Amino acid sequence: MKQKRKLILVSNDDGIDARGLKFLIDIVKPFGDLLVVAPDKGQSGMSHSISSFDPLRVSKIEESEKIAIYSVSGTPVDCVKLAINSLLDRKPDLMVSGINHGSNAAINIIYSGTMGAAIEASLHGIPSIGFSVDDHSKNADFSIVESHGPVLIKKVLENGLPEQVSLNVNYPVVNKNDFKGYMVCRQTAGVWKEGFDKRIDPLGKDYYWYTGKFYNFEPDDNATDEWALKNNYAAIVPVKPDFTEYNLINELKKWNI
Amino acid sequence: MKQKRKLILVSNDDGIDARGLKFLIDIVKPFGDLLVVAPDKGQSGMSHSISSFDPLRVSKIEESEKIAIYSVSGTPVDCVKLAINSLLDRKPDLMVSGINHGSNAAINIIYSGTMGAAIEASLHGIPSIGFSVDDHSKNADFSIVESHGPVLIKKVLENGLPEQVSLNVNYPVVNKNDFKGYMVCRQTAGVWKEGFDKRIDPLGKDYYWYTGKFYNFEPDDNATDEWALKNNYAAIVPVKPDFTEYNLINELKKWNI
Repeated sequence: MKQKRKLILVSNDDGIDARGLKFLIDIVKPFGDLLVVAPDKGQSGMSHSISSFDPLRVSKIEESEKIAIYSVSGTPVDCVKLAINSLLDRKPDLMVSGINHGSNAAINIIYSGTMGAAIEASLHGIPSIGFSVDDHSKNADFSIVESHGPVLIKKVLENGLPEQVSLNVNYPVVNKNDFKGYMVCRQTAGVWKEGFDKRIDPLGKDYYWYTGKFYNFEPDDNATDEWALKNNYAAIVPVKPDFTEYNLINELKKWNI
Repeated sequence: MKQKRKLILVSNDDGIDARGLKFLIDIVKPFGDLLVVAPDKGQSGMSHSISSFDPLRVSKIEESEKIAIYSVSGTPVDCVKLAINSLLDRKPDLMVSGINHGSNAAINIIYSGTMGAAIEASLHGIPSIGFSVDDHSKNADFSIVESHGPVLIKKVLENGLPEQVSLNVNYPVVNKNDFKGYMVCRQTAGVWKEGFDKRIDPLGKDYYWYTGKFYNFEPDDNATDEWALKNNYAAIVPVKPDFTEYNLINELKKWNI
């Protein structure tokens, strides 16, 4: 009996025209047939948001035997939800998101549309990986993902991932010879503190631009994703969207309210 | 020495004109001075998103000795970040978000702008509470929060919360006499499965509206927030934005990639 070819769902948050998406498509192509469903414009920082108020438009960009590409007038999570409900006729074997221009390590994960898409797919029982490179520039070097992504993708296809679990994978910017390989670790605790740039427009009204700096709450601990990146490892964090702080449940019960 | 009055930051995701916000302001007023910073329009489903691409506009709505109210042309998280960086001269003693029209129990938390705002404040070391009522209607009955919110707010002001921890508090829709009080619990595992409503516009083009149904992955377990709501309790889930699935770290290390 002929085995069905693997089916892989691809999305991102930098939008359908992003270089990172084209790289990711080339990386996963050898593993199966692709359905690419990406936002029609950049959606960085859109987190796990959905378009509650606006209808969604879907445009077919390309369709051949082995790849279909669509853009959606919404967020990364909208793309995944629409793909699963309306564009796929069977459950994909894998979902990949990215390659993101910029790190999604530490608390960046909560703002990230790239990881929003991967987490959403994991909720529907699809093994999912979000790929990011610690370089925001438009010309970020993705060759490290080309070299080292396939071995990880192969492992996830072979082993699967538990329900509701995805992988947040971040690559350092590093010379090929200095790269130390993958490290499985936990999310670094920390916060972005903003220093908004306040300006005056030609009509005399204020407006603010985001600027900011990351503060790491952790000791110099080799178990975190920030440590891994700083020490030339690619960080793999297994991710589950359970926000419960279990350590505090019993303490709060003592409040007796 | 005269003790400083408490300072409370208030935000929401339904926007500056939402009924829930006005209720919440009245509930927290007796506890201190208020800074209200809310989105200038509805931001439901905006999750933890930030406005990366657009500058933010701030409008002063009202200012008196005990309360200042601003609207921001952005997301709930934008409001909190701007408040902390540019509108506050000291760290608030408490942040409250809501009252949300609709439940933020279970996986709703990840799509929720109400909880996005509360979680963001917690990252900056501010004890934070997100309040939601399990009723999406414009005329949702918030009297249960008026009756039972103050005791919880008092406890949080007295005891504080650990760094990076906020509370996700959801109230059932229930007659006063049937309400069973608070239950501290964990986030219910589950997923929203969408059944997009596909329509044709007057120009003959497709568009999609979200519809959906929640699937609960849990047994009928009295430790979850969905169980609490269904059994006439208000659910309190302590929340921390650490996405790491610790149970899987050792397993993944065995992959040896």
